[in-house]
Amino acid sequence: MRNLLLNLSYNGKNYHGWQIQKNARTVQQVFQETLFKTLGEQVDIKGCSRTDSGVHANMYCVSFKTNSTIPEEKLPFALNKFLPDDICVYSCKLANDDFHARYSCSGKEYIYKIWNSPFRNPFLDGYALHYWYPLDIDKLNEACREFLGEHDFSAFCTKDARNPKNMIRTIKSFNVQKENELVTVAVEADGFLYNMVRILVGTLLHVSIGRIKICDIKDIINSKDRLRAGPTAIPCGLYLNRVFYPGMDFC
Amino acid sequence: MRNLLLNLSYNGKNYHGWQIQKNARTVQQVFQETLFKTLGEQVDIKGCSRTDSGVHANMYCVSFKTNSTIPEEKLPFALNKFLPDDICVYSCKLANDDFHARYSCSGKEYIYKIWNSPFRNPFLDGYALHYWYPLDIDKLNEACREFLGEHDFSAFCTKDARNPKNMIRTIKSFNVQKENELVTVAVEADGFLYNMVRILVGTLLHVSIGRIKICDIKDIINSKDRLRAGPTAIPCGLYLNRVFYPGMDFC
Repeated sequence: MRNLLLNLSYNGKNYHGWQIQKNARTVQQVFQETLFKTLGEQVDIKGCSRTDSGVHANMYCVSFKTNSTIPEEKLPFALNKFLPDDICVYSCKLANDDFHARYSCSGKEYIYKIWNSPFRNPFLDGYALHYWYPLDIDKLNEACREFLGEHDFSAFCTKDARNPKNMIRTIKSFNVQKENELVTVAVEADGFLYNMVRILVGTLLHVSIGRIKICDIKDIINSKDRLRAGPTAIPCGLYLNRVFYPGMDFC
Repeated sequence: MRNLLLNLSYNGKNYHGWQIQKNARTVQQVFQETLFKTLGEQVDIKGCSRTDSGVHANMYCVSFKTNSTIPEEKLPFALNKFLPDDICVYSCKLANDDFHARYSCSGKEYIYKIWNSPFRNPFLDGYALHYWYPLDIDKLNEACREFLGEHDFSAFCTKDARNPKNMIRTIKSFNVQKENELVTVAVEADGFLYNMVRILVGTLLHVSIGRIKICDIKDIINSKDRLRAGPTAIPCGLYLNRVFYPGMDFC
């Protein structure tokens, strides 16, 4: 029995996130059905993380054990034949027996896209936040630096029954880039709390309009008070961009 | 009465092209209804060209005469409030009395996007042609050069009741660029025949797989025989990109 690791990307616009739910179409459900059709056996798939409704993935990782003999290099093409056009598997690797897409993960990078213009972009509806007021990229990068390192990020987490006990995470990099009107926020950490990236982005936007001062960010983190951070930015600008596993390099 | 020129962009995925039709949703219809709501009067709008079902526009030009007193700089925002998210007006200019978005036009540029990879891109479904076989960009650019200049392009036109008598057009520039897996074909001419860009792209793809030889292109043009050119590439990769008017610079 092989333990396989698949890399895929998906356009989340028409899905209620990754995780299987009752009465809603999710990526996991569609993916699991396709695996069953392709492999001819029911497999128990492990996804690298949950993603919210409307959130996208440039890279998402899935692991599962299978008795199928389809060679690794052929499996992506076999799956893509049955998958809808908004999901694509682009690689398959043999993993160690104890590999688990979620628990073996040592870090992730998310990006968040903002269309920063007085005019909306008809091609980015559902793929970026449309934000009118001009963003000062240097100022936002200065704010980003305040978040770097290990902190209790309770102030940047939506309260939820699924909250973990340990709210400490380490942000390894966090920056904002602009290319013409498209602003991209990128943040890498060892892990993320529920809605953490979207609240970080909402906080940056509050910094940009002066509602939150850069010199107060450390204090907001230390307060662990969700109400002092910025709002939760809409989901459609968010993309899971990279997933890291020790000793594995996909890029 | 002012004669106004509007620049807009639209995502054509959910429209049956520009031109008003019975029983189909078109950009012109939605746009005309929105103008009526915004201006409070029925206006006769002139579009710079027809576009086919599923074709997009990064820049499309519309002219119309109006008694409305809404200032030019405010009209885009007023219209965008009522327009759906897949259409955006981004400028409005006062034009000469005899200006006509179609007849005053001295040239246009179209681009055609090709996702050139064994793996589809879940974010480009409806926005690019997915083409598996590796494209040799230098070879395609060599083919493009054969089309430059003034020719009778009958071989690159779908036969249609609307065909003009004069099939002569001048291609001013025609080239192919590649950025990672995204290949962009750009072609500028004084005007285009029905489906001309899509047939030019289909011909380039036949050049790439060796079905059409570069040394035969001049002969195919001279034959005026549609059957000797390549197939008509699917519409969704096509974008009207720029529209030129003498003495006016939008860029």
